Amino acid sequence: MLKSKDLLGIRDLEVSEIMSILELAHEMKKKITDSTLREDTLKGRSMITLFYENSTRTKVSFNMAGLYQGAMVTDLGVATSSVQKGETLVDTGITLDQMGIDFMVMRHGLSGASHLLAKNVKASVINAGDGANEHPTQALLDLYTMLDKKGSFKDLNVTIVGDIAHSRVARSNVFGLKKLGANVTLAGCGTLASGTMEALGATVTHDIKNAIKGADVVMGLRIQMERQKGGLFPNLREYSQLYGLDEEMFSYADKEAILMHPAPVNRGIELMPELLDSNVSVIDEQVQNGVAVRMAILALLNERRGR
Amino acid sequence: MLKSKDLLGIRDLEVSEIMSILELAHEMKKKITDSTLREDTLKGRSMITLFYENSTRTKVSFNMAGLYQGAMVTDLGVATSSVQKGETLVDTGITLDQMGIDFMVMRHGLSGASHLLAKNVKASVINAGDGANEHPTQALLDLYTMLDKKGSFKDLNVTIVGDIAHSRVARSNVFGLKKLGANVTLAGCGTLASGTMEALGATVTHDIKNAIKGADVVMGLRIQMERQKGGLFPNLREYSQLYGLDEEMFSYADKEAILMHPAPVNRGIELMPELLDSNVSVIDEQVQNGVAVRMAILALLNERRGR
Amino acid sequence: MLKSKDLLGIRDLEVSEIMSILELAHEMKKKITDSTLREDTLKGRSMITLFYENSTRTKVSFNMAGLYQGAMVTDLGVATSSVQKGETLVDTGITLDQMGIDFMVMRHGLSGASHLLAKNVKASVINAGDGANEHPTQALLDLYTMLDKKGSFKDLNVTIVGDIAHSRVARSNVFGLKKLGANVTLAGCGTLASGTMEALGATVTHDIKNAIKGADVVMGLRIQMERQKGGLFPNLREYSQLYGLDEEMFSYADKEAILMHPAPVNRGIELMPELLDSNVSVIDEQVQNGVAVRMAILALLNERRGR
Repeated sequence: MLKSKDLLGIRDLEVSEIMSILELAHEMKKKITDSTLREDTLKGRSMITLFYENSTRTKVSFNMAGLYQGAMVTDLGVATSSVQKGETLVDTGITLDQMGIDFMVMRHGLSGASHLLAKNVKASVINAGDGANEHPTQALLDLYTMLDKKGSFKDLNVTIVGDIAHSRVARSNVFGLKKLGANVTLAGCGTLASGTMEALGATVTHDIKNAIKGADVVMGLRIQMERQKGGLFPNLREYSQLYGLDEEMFSYADKEAILMHPAPVNRGIELMPELLDSNVSVIDEQVQNGVAVRMAILALLNERRGR
Repeated sequence: MLKSKDLLGIRDLEVSEIMSILELAHEMKKKITDSTLREDTLKGRSMITLFYENSTRTKVSFNMAGLYQGAMVTDLGVATSSVQKGETLVDTGITLDQMGIDFMVMRHGLSGASHLLAKNVKASVINAGDGANEHPTQALLDLYTMLDKKGSFKDLNVTIVGDIAHSRVARSNVFGLKKLGANVTLAGCGTLASGTMEALGATVTHDIKNAIKGADVVMGLRIQMERQKGGLFPNLREYSQLYGLDEEMFSYADKEAILMHPAPVNRGIELMPELLDSNVSVIDEQVQNGVAVRMAILALLNERRGR
Repeated sequence: MLKSKDLLGIRDLEVSEIMSILELAHEMKKKITDSTLREDTLKGRSMITLFYENSTRTKVSFNMAGLYQGAMVTDLGVATSSVQKGETLVDTGITLDQMGIDFMVMRHGLSGASHLLAKNVKASVINAGDGANEHPTQALLDLYTMLDKKGSFKDLNVTIVGDIAHSRVARSNVFGLKKLGANVTLAGCGTLASGTMEALGATVTHDIKNAIKGADVVMGLRIQMERQKGGLFPNLREYSQLYGLDEEMFSYADKEAILMHPAPVNRGIELMPELLDSNVSVIDEQVQNGVAVRMAILALLNERRGR
């Protein structure tokens, strides 16, 4: 059971809420691989995607999460719409609320945008990424994948490598992993590593080799080319040489370690092909777990909705 | 019961047809606010949106009107499609007719485009705005809102303020309001006010203050920047100063008067924020009534269709 | 019954497979014209369209084929998505496979792209046109139309006129017609005619008049402006004068001959308006048959799918 009508961030979730999402996701996963199990449990409910930043992959994942439960799914088409130009986010939200939309799934470039929307609508808002703040459904699918593969978060050593300062994925994962009792180490390059993560209980280092030593989970991050401004951007080739993960670097991790990444991977930049295509990678499964987690979130939020 | 297979304009509708739409819309409205009441009454029926002029808001409103009744909804994607380039409108219509589409919802820049389409297809065509001609579903939602708030059209004083000469919304409202026994006054600036509306029984004036005196309904219009050509466009700031509605101007209306606008509002140009956000505004409700009216139109047109 | 999980080309189909598609299409056709016959036989199944080349018409045809059987239909939005930039086709396919997509309908500019996708996914892939290779669903709707109008392929004389060298439509038709026992003559202009078709059993000529003599079926092709490169493109006006079909040219065909074209027609270039609008044309029916054939393909592929 969730306590809020919305799912805006991992920061606000209690451990029991996180666990109920992960448990229901486990049930939902069967409906992805077996079409015949899909049921219309969200029949009559409507979901709209508002993606102020483009992400086909995440949008399709949410679409399928809704459709597999019989919901009606629409896209606002923000990129091509006049909405983006003239109208405030709150006015757009109120309009969609008046139209009886039950779920609003939003990605937005500004941190806190989903909180602003949620405060002004009766619909359940799901944050599909807001600026450098949070990307809770990505973190939940990551948590699901770790639990599924490792059995427990207790003393689990998770190392996240890459473009940390700009990563809402890293941020949401840190919130979740610390709540669940895991150890988190963040390793990134000089211009990118952020000190603010330390306050959340994560270890931050520039020494990637040391960070990976003994890790149970190694997670690469997507370098956010479009978020780099003002000359802070490291030379891509240099970045790849210093921090790109290859088999040799991965060999410092625990023997049973798994490799994760939010995808799509920039092949040969963040992850070297021979590592990416080896059997330590659970990246393809993460995609499936993403649909499962989003199905669970829609179902749990729906339970809270009066009608 | 509707007499035509299509809904092309208010001009062609009889009073009894208008009233049957408004009455059914009242029933439909419950299904917007209460998801559990939505039924598959249009199951198996297909609707396509053809928007040669972009309008996310109207398109989503029609989508929800179809989906809430279980219809299959598709968009032709005119903006990005090759359809627009090579093919005549009639050829596009015949193609979609052959595909078994039941409802074609079209917005087009040319007056009469929906009539041309309707004449050439077996599908039911719904005009979602054709050039400077009509926007019947907008007028019907406006009429619904007035009836809901004021109880009767008899001697109702309706004043429409703004960019009248280019407004298909004003035109459709004048047709409807005159049929239903209301008094209509149109107030616009010199370069924009149109004499042709007088032939339809509306009073046309440049004196906005006088036009508003004693009005039961004051309706602002959206200034159509994209329709202004050849230097006729008034200075925006000047337009706003002369004709933008604020609380002082609104105070000349009847004590119980309501404020309407087809939305989205250009805040601070047509309507001043303090008026817009006050409790005289029924603009948000208009959005909901729009879905309800469109649900009713689809349902009534469906009754007429053989199979 | 189909032998493969995918429908990639006519070349790979046995005669019995082609006939089972055409027979089922005949049943499906009733559901297009009569909304009340549509059933949810693909309920719970998901279909996605991946159009790396734009084609609104074909995409809508596939959409309706899925929707009329109750499938869930989504578009990847390749044109506007980041997918196209960074990700390999195989990675995109694996991602969609992980999301539980049952049917992937792809159009792609490269010959063999659909084979590559099919080999890497569990989903059923339907080729909606791959480069200059094949466009099997178009050929199947053409075959259906010929069978429906002419009763048999035995000794049927089919003449295809136009931009042959670049035409996957012609290629797929040749594969199918030769298997089914028809005689195929291809007539195109010097720079466009391809000798490779002769190896498939078709007669290739530049003499269009002679090619049409006694034909039971005359099929025009769409000139593929976007595929012409390197100065090979003939002067449009000259092309139209030499090879554009008009009533006089069509009079050389059999008295009962029908006129076909994959549409949309470039009016006045490939086909002259007076011929196009005469009653020898079955082009509008081809559109309807296209939905019917695609419905049949989805239904037959679904039978093969475990769950």
